[in-house]
Amino acid sequence: MITVSRTNSQSNYSPDLPAVLEITSGDRVQFSTYDARGGALLNQRPTGTAFDLTKPIPGKGNPVTGPIAIKGAKPGDALLVHILSITCDPIGWCGGHAHAGAVEAGRVPKPLGRVCEVSPKGVVFSPEITIPLRPMIGCIGTAPLESATTAVAWTHGGNMDQPVVRSNTSILLPVFVEGALLYIGDIHATQGDGEISGVGLEIGAEVVVEVELIPGAAPEWPWLINDDSVMVLTVGENFEKSSYTAIDQGMKLLESQLNLAPADALALLSICGDVRLGGFYGIPHVTTRLEIPRHLNVSPPGLHKGTK
Amino acid sequence: MITVSRTNSQSNYSPDLPAVLEITSGDRVQFSTYDARGGALLNQRPTGTAFDLTKPIPGKGNPVTGPIAIKGAKPGDALLVHILSITCDPIGWCGGHAHAGAVEAGRVPKPLGRVCEVSPKGVVFSPEITIPLRPMIGCIGTAPLESATTAVAWTHGGNMDQPVVRSNTSILLPVFVEGALLYIGDIHATQGDGEISGVGLEIGAEVVVEVELIPGAAPEWPWLINDDSVMVLTVGENFEKSSYTAIDQGMKLLESQLNLAPADALALLSICGDVRLGGFYGIPHVTTRLEIPRHLNVSPPGLHKGTK
Repeated sequence: MITVSRTNSQSNYSPDLPAVLEITSGDRVQFSTYDARGGALLNQRPTGTAFDLTKPIPGKGNPVTGPIAIKGAKPGDALLVHILSITCDPIGWCGGHAHAGAVEAGRVPKPLGRVCEVSPKGVVFSPEITIPLRPMIGCIGTAPLESATTAVAWTHGGNMDQPVVRSNTSILLPVFVEGALLYIGDIHATQGDGEISGVGLEIGAEVVVEVELIPGAAPEWPWLINDDSVMVLTVGENFEKSSYTAIDQGMKLLESQLNLAPADALALLSICGDVRLGGFYGIPHVTTRLEIPRHLNVSPPGLHKGTK
Repeated sequence: MITVSRTNSQSNYSPDLPAVLEITSGDRVQFSTYDARGGALLNQRPTGTAFDLTKPIPGKGNPVTGPIAIKGAKPGDALLVHILSITCDPIGWCGGHAHAGAVEAGRVPKPLGRVCEVSPKGVVFSPEITIPLRPMIGCIGTAPLESATTAVAWTHGGNMDQPVVRSNTSILLPVFVEGALLYIGDIHATQGDGEISGVGLEIGAEVVVEVELIPGAAPEWPWLINDDSVMVLTVGENFEKSSYTAIDQGMKLLESQLNLAPADALALLSICGDVRLGGFYGIPHVTTRLEIPRHLNVSPPGLHKGTK
């Protein structure tokens, strides 16, 4: 297994950072990743108790591991990243603060974090409350043409905070630069749609992926496919605008693959497609997705039908 | 079984309309309901084909059946409406138009509707495409203090277009006037989160509910409970504001029932609660919900733990 250590961590998705390794299409890679504060909040704190949650240092949050280069990848291609497994560290943290989340100023008078034990049995929020594990990748992306902070998301991927980015899922990312330069980080042991405090169950992890290069298949936005749905992941300055982009992308897919008029594509999405939230974090750059059921027999753009 | 015919249909949730019947807490009632255009689009049209979709006549869309009075209900009480079954008519319609949905002007050059056969086997969108049935109630509400059109939603319920309002679900509604005055209509044989064209699979139906009067339990917003989740259903001028209201309601619940600090309530919701969309229809009054998993062992406000 090819591995990338979490010491290879970056604060930007940059086209200029040298690749830490180069792989070939079809290779499996294990990314070891830090939590969103690089482990700084975990030190010396007992699990299951609250602590004062400070804001992240601008430009230092969400470290991502990488970049790795894919041999032969060039602008216009796509990476289809098959997420095979996400194995969380034994402790992580969550929290509620008001500077980046979905609550009015003052609703949370005192920001608190909690260090939590995490095992296959669940996340121990407190002695009384244990919740199920649902590991997911908060940040995954290729290098954009201009360096982007790991705090935000855009067409290259990035800090999408989409709970559907998990194992047994494949994500299709556009390639903008030679070698593609793939980054992964910001794993959450669990997070709801919206990630409403701006913080999931933040944790270091080992993420195993298989990277497939699809020549000439660069999508306009990242797409996802799992057993249930084909999904497009979008970003906008508010949920309406981000949703409009997702719906436009979904309509294009149904128009081309099912040969439907625009009104029929919209009608069909309206009765069986779900518009859902990724994260509020990064306002004015929030994330949404459109989930299209697999039974419609459509595939992400550029892939053959039934590809997974 | 007590029945209410669809000829008892109204264009407003009004505190002034006379009740078509009075029931007692614990009674079961079958509401027969019209589709969102009162059947006008179904006449003479073959199923599985498209037709020019006209805009609804303002004030005439979304007819609701009722109102029924509940003996002894008074302001400050709540109705807990247990939805026992939704049986759809054999044909309904869906459509894509651009005046009320989630697409930019011009994206749908020609609005189209489709009359579709609906049976337990599914919704026949076209000869090639059949999709699963997921019947739900678009409009359910009590009479507010001032008459409200059936096009919109607010604290009394109304046109919420929340796909989770289905059978094996109970909805808790506030009572504002003597007798409560309950209305139900606008059934969809299926609809995705967002109802992005502004149109679900619109259909007439028979809806069987059991109505329970809960003295003094009026919630600030409608709440829902099913096997998986406890949910609050909210409305706002955009998704952010509607979500903020839902999150504030969810935090209050966790603060009071789990004895958590505001930051901890927010942190817990962030890792295991889902903020989701009801419908875009009615911009600037869109609907959202917060889904809180049952495993947290909380109940809608005013109900005993474990109530369903």
